[in-house]
Amino acid sequence: MELGRHLHRIVLGLSYRGESYHGWQSQSDGKTVQDHLESALGRFSALENSPRIAVHCAGRTDTGVHALQQLVHFDTPLQRDNNSWVRGVNRYLPDDIAVRWAQPMPADFHCRSAALSRRYVYLLLDSPVRPSLGAQRVGWSHRPLDVAAMQAAADLLLGQHDFSSFRASACQALSPIKHLTRLHITRQGSLVLCEFEANAFLHHMVRNIMGCLVAVGQGAYAPEWLGQVLNAQSRKVAAPTFSAAGLYFLGGTYAPQWNLPDISAGELLPHILLS
Amino acid sequence: MELGRHLHRIVLGLSYRGESYHGWQSQSDGKTVQDHLESALGRFSALENSPRIAVHCAGRTDTGVHALQQLVHFDTPLQRDNNSWVRGVNRYLPDDIAVRWAQPMPADFHCRSAALSRRYVYLLLDSPVRPSLGAQRVGWSHRPLDVAAMQAAADLLLGQHDFSSFRASACQALSPIKHLTRLHITRQGSLVLCEFEANAFLHHMVRNIMGCLVAVGQGAYAPEWLGQVLNAQSRKVAAPTFSAAGLYFLGGTYAPQWNLPDISAGELLPHILLS
Repeated sequence: MELGRHLHRIVLGLSYRGESYHGWQSQSDGKTVQDHLESALGRFSALENSPRIAVHCAGRTDTGVHALQQLVHFDTPLQRDNNSWVRGVNRYLPDDIAVRWAQPMPADFHCRSAALSRRYVYLLLDSPVRPSLGAQRVGWSHRPLDVAAMQAAADLLLGQHDFSSFRASACQALSPIKHLTRLHITRQGSLVLCEFEANAFLHHMVRNIMGCLVAVGQGAYAPEWLGQVLNAQSRKVAAPTFSAAGLYFLGGTYAPQWNLPDISAGELLPHILLS
Repeated sequence: MELGRHLHRIVLGLSYRGESYHGWQSQSDGKTVQDHLESALGRFSALENSPRIAVHCAGRTDTGVHALQQLVHFDTPLQRDNNSWVRGVNRYLPDDIAVRWAQPMPADFHCRSAALSRRYVYLLLDSPVRPSLGAQRVGWSHRPLDVAAMQAAADLLLGQHDFSSFRASACQALSPIKHLTRLHITRQGSLVLCEFEANAFLHHMVRNIMGCLVAVGQGAYAPEWLGQVLNAQSRKVAAPTFSAAGLYFLGGTYAPQWNLPDISAGELLPHILLS
């Protein structure tokens, strides 16, 4: 084993399916993505006194939520090439979690604090028949969705607002004021993609907004209703939290100076589905 | 309950994920797609002395193989509208099996014997990194695939041949001679789609051909090698059987007179992935 004199900071790009895990963050039952990753890193590294290696992530995901790109960093005395981190750690991970790339980074890079914004995509199946191939991988509307009405409603949420109406009671964020910079809705056949970007998100914020957007898309409310929900600053007026099944974390965005791999928009749908 | 005087023949279009089931065909352990469907039909129909209702399918699928469209038919004294069969039976099916449509058919229609041909699509992920979101849903090549070479090799298999080289030892078909009418390979980003159509397929025929096509795509053999494999009429010369993970049954094709719903080519990728 080759040990350098110093600790190196390594960043990994991860993807995972959420349905088998109790979310990202480590728990005593060990059934989280973080638990599996830290154990796999420990086994690959095989350092004495290191049964697992602690990592920091760009953003925690809830039970059932998937990630196309989750960034994590950790410090290690090991010197391995990038491909060796990818292949070696993947050997010890379950088949629905994978390291996609690895890269050494300066010690002042932090996955969470360096993130300029976070992105999610929500995938909805618009079909009278429930999904089967996409079970636990897609949200479902059994009534036809009016995407133009959904986009008109979504536009009312753009900008900096108090998002208390879309905040879970368990949310631990210091402030309910967030800046939503993108909420773009497109249809691809029977699939409706809702792309979110904000400086940060409150707990369940995307799923609570999705509940409202689906209600508008199904015609239960006019688009203007979503502005009223936002202004009420109360969880009581919004629609129920929508299913976690269709929610995919796209990770943080970072300043170009860090030179980190990103997910190209053209690859989005295949990535979501089968990579 | 409304019982007609006669038995009616009903056809269902099904889709399912294969990874949780021991294939299509009923087994004593009850862990097959047919077992789940027959039980669900029995529960929905709630007829006396009918704990389950026997169905006939267009084509059996193996353990781990998925179906975008499997056709089944059965006879019932019940008169229900088409939507009622869809919604009602889906209530009793696991979430990775769904009835997509239902339709009454004349009593001389048989899902298997009326099928003019069968179609499969095989989905390959061409990536140095193993799949995670697509685990058990896609085949994987860690070496880059030359799609043009794969297509050149595939073209050598078109037409009527003795396909013994691609036949599993357990195959019960009366003859190894089949007519392969289509084997079309296309790339969509990191995904490679291989579309198969033949009058009928031998056991493991698609997966055995895929093993050879991947070997050619990775550069282990020239395209012409596949012609030699075909001519050898011996399983010993072909590549190992490729993973079931990326194999999707598209069902039979039927004469237009039957007026059955089909899967449109444009919908193929989203269908495969999340419907």
